[in-house]
Amino acid sequence: MKTWICPGSFDPVTSGHIDIIKRAAKMCDRLIVAIGINDKKAPFLTAGERRRLLEKSIAGIPNAEVDEFQGLLIEYARKMEAAAIVKGLRAVSDYEYELQMALLNKRLDEGIETIFLMSGINFSFLSSRAVRELASNGGDIRGLVPDEVLDDIMAKYR
Amino acid sequence: MKTWICPGSFDPVTSGHIDIIKRAAKMCDRLIVAIGINDKKAPFLTAGERRRLLEKSIAGIPNAEVDEFQGLLIEYARKMEAAAIVKGLRAVSDYEYELQMALLNKRLDEGIETIFLMSGINFSFLSSRAVRELASNGGDIRGLVPDEVLDDIMAKYR
Amino acid sequence: MKTWICPGSFDPVTSGHIDIIKRAAKMCDRLIVAIGINDKKAPFLTAGERRRLLEKSIAGIPNAEVDEFQGLLIEYARKMEAAAIVKGLRAVSDYEYELQMALLNKRLDEGIETIFLMSGINFSFLSSRAVRELASNGGDIRGLVPDEVLDDIMAKYR
Amino acid sequence: MKTWICPGSFDPVTSGHIDIIKRAAKMCDRLIVAIGINDKKAPFLTAGERRRLLEKSIAGIPNAEVDEFQGLLIEYARKMEAAAIVKGLRAVSDYEYELQMALLNKRLDEGIETIFLMSGINFSFLSSRAVRELASNGGDIRGLVPDEVLDDIMAKYR
Amino acid sequence: MKTWICPGSFDPVTSGHIDIIKRAAKMCDRLIVAIGINDKKAPFLTAGERRRLLEKSIAGIPNAEVDEFQGLLIEYARKMEAAAIVKGLRAVSDYEYELQMALLNKRLDEGIETIFLMSGINFSFLSSRAVRELASNGGDIRGLVPDEVLDDIMAKYR
Amino acid sequence: MKTWICPGSFDPVTSGHIDIIKRAAKMCDRLIVAIGINDKKAPFLTAGERRRLLEKSIAGIPNAEVDEFQGLLIEYARKMEAAAIVKGLRAVSDYEYELQMALLNKRLDEGIETIFLMSGINFSFLSSRAVRELASNGGDIRGLVPDEVLDDIMAKYR
Repeated sequence: MKTWICPGSFDPVTSGHIDIIKRAAKMCDRLIVAIGINDKKAPFLTAGERRRLLEKSIAGIPNAEVDEFQGLLIEYARKMEAAAIVKGLRAVSDYEYELQMALLNKRLDEGIETIFLMSGINFSFLSSRAVRELASNGGDIRGLVPDEVLDDIMAKYR
Repeated sequence: MKTWICPGSFDPVTSGHIDIIKRAAKMCDRLIVAIGINDKKAPFLTAGERRRLLEKSIAGIPNAEVDEFQGLLIEYARKMEAAAIVKGLRAVSDYEYELQMALLNKRLDEGIETIFLMSGINFSFLSSRAVRELASNGGDIRGLVPDEVLDDIMAKYR
Repeated sequence: MKTWICPGSFDPVTSGHIDIIKRAAKMCDRLIVAIGINDKKAPFLTAGERRRLLEKSIAGIPNAEVDEFQGLLIEYARKMEAAAIVKGLRAVSDYEYELQMALLNKRLDEGIETIFLMSGINFSFLSSRAVRELASNGGDIRGLVPDEVLDDIMAKYR
Repeated sequence: MKTWICPGSFDPVTSGHIDIIKRAAKMCDRLIVAIGINDKKAPFLTAGERRRLLEKSIAGIPNAEVDEFQGLLIEYARKMEAAAIVKGLRAVSDYEYELQMALLNKRLDEGIETIFLMSGINFSFLSSRAVRELASNGGDIRGLVPDEVLDDIMAKYR
Repeated sequence: MKTWICPGSFDPVTSGHIDIIKRAAKMCDRLIVAIGINDKKAPFLTAGERRRLLEKSIAGIPNAEVDEFQGLLIEYARKMEAAAIVKGLRAVSDYEYELQMALLNKRLDEGIETIFLMSGINFSFLSSRAVRELASNGGDIRGLVPDEVLDDIMAKYR
Repeated sequence: MKTWICPGSFDPVTSGHIDIIKRAAKMCDRLIVAIGINDKKAPFLTAGERRRLLEKSIAGIPNAEVDEFQGLLIEYARKMEAAAIVKGLRAVSDYEYELQMALLNKRLDEGIETIFLMSGINFSFLSSRAVRELASNGGDIRGLVPDEVLDDIMAKYR
């Protein structure tokens, strides 16, 4: 069974995340959407909130599930016996950072592959930060976040 | 009457800003230089200080004026009935970020255009942050900020 | 009267070009879509063919017209008494090249501005070269070129 | 059965290609290494030569095979019932071009995914062109091409 | 006597830093490895700790020494009568920032050159931040930091 | 004695080249400006013409001389017992290509360093190609090429 991990902070989940998750889920047997918990960075939503939004958003994808991890991603991937880490790419600046992380992770564990998918064209400008800024200023976030959690996110930020 | 908006934090205004403002003012009927007020980021200068420096610097441009806005830039542009938002570009990293914001703003209001002008070659290395660092360490900022406010900025940071 | 110039080789015109032309035409009084004729580069379509496709495509834009030029763009812009050259930007690699040309043109004539508009998101992957490759291999180019010239381009390349 | 396609011109195959091919082969059931035949570009090696070098190089990978295609990659992928196209990424300039091709291919067939793997760190500077230049100038290409074809390539270019 | 300065925050020193320092030391008479002390940014290690790690790491390089500086780098370089500032480059994002700083420094003192060396290929993914994250999460940092200070850094972060 | 090599095609020499050559000459004992002769690429000027223009342009730099080389740069550098190859950098796209070449050259000879200097700000838009295009279209190239060869280059291209 081929397990892939799709890591992120999902603060909050966006339609761009779900696009990547759906496409990745088609290519593996089990996709773990893994929320990184980092004690040093203060997230906008708690781990529990981020998890609930994600779970609602991926309810329709049978081989995807949500989990949380602390510490090094590569250690978590090893523990879950994952074959690959999958990431979405948007701009060139994403690419450089992700490339560095991928090279570092490869050095730490040669056996775990990093796979890049490009963001869908309609999500190329979309980030959790943009959603937060729009939502907290009364902007329209319809289409930018999964329909299933639109009301939750709007309620949260209003 | 064609209104354009030139947004920024102007903390403080630099000669690069004024170069873009002058060139943009020639291409529209009314140019609003709009200081973004963001409660979450602590600016180095207060909104009032940034405004006074800008007003002094653009006193000679008849169709330019200074204003402040809070919340979403695109909402502000709509309220001012602006035809376009105008931005200066320097490095590639600027470009990526500005492109994302432009695409996001286009999605929020198809009718408001984002226009990019390239920074004058002598200002391609110049940023408000560089001015702050130089000024607070006793470096020479002549030419990097408008002559009209050179003394004010030096007094402020010394 | 404010004249802007939108230069290119338009070999052939794409929907991305028309998107930029429409948006630019709204911001000036007269927009000259200027086909660059370069004796050293062999185009796929003749200047006459490129011109006819462009003319058909912009027939509905009252203040836009097609012209041809040889030699330096900045000389042509000066001769037409243009206030600005307008260019569409897609990827970062575009940006670097266009920035260099803009800086060079600014050095040759300080009075003519270069204005950048970002490509519409659905055209960010689109180029004349991609259209040529698709069309000559029987790919579907609907939506990638203006509807008015779809049949002409398909006939040309088949 | 999950078929992936790894396209390229392989003129000639390099150690960087083989690194990507090996890693991709582990993630799918059948990997087709597909040599693009383009009548307009004159390759350095004939299609037959490129094929023989590739076949020798991947002899040890049981689920990988070599094929050739003409015309649009996406049509070929569809014909082979491939689930994905897999590409190696090195520099940022690669990334931009590949991203454009991936977006274009996605528009032509939503159902075929493009997957990016990063080049192994020791191959990040390596290209077929570099191999050609080294080999034809008597430079040492050991390690830059698969051991199995080192002598063939050296003989070819000497 | 030609003095070069290699500035950084070295929080902590990595094998990538030492690679650049060794190569730079070969090209000048005296290399000052200068730790930037910035009261506004809280480093992870104190200036004293960073200095001791650096001194241990470069003990074998006869013409290299460690120093600290506050304020503007260019003022410090002038005071030390340095002919050049030497920096290592990794990704494109490094490059853009370093280029801006180099242009700014050139404006402040035309006589002091900025020299760029590329990072060794095995250190292209390596940063002080990556070392901190690995070390504090129990990851293996062998090879990523100089052998001479491996135990010190592991003790510090455990 | 420290020998550095500044390679290029110099077709023709520009003021940007001379800026790099002057700055590099200050940092080494002997600077060889080496014209790459490539039988496969047709230059605009012959090797002899390029050499004469270069020699006239660097006549005032006592420790710089002009030479020509064929084949691999790194072999030539080794033969000349050079300690380093020095290159000017302008845009990000330059950087990527030069970085790849530097990594490749490092693999071929660990002992020869590649050193990057950034182009002077007034030459960041300048290339031999731009000079050729301007000169052959009657544009003004004053300041873009060394004064010593301005008339020669204008005569050549008119």
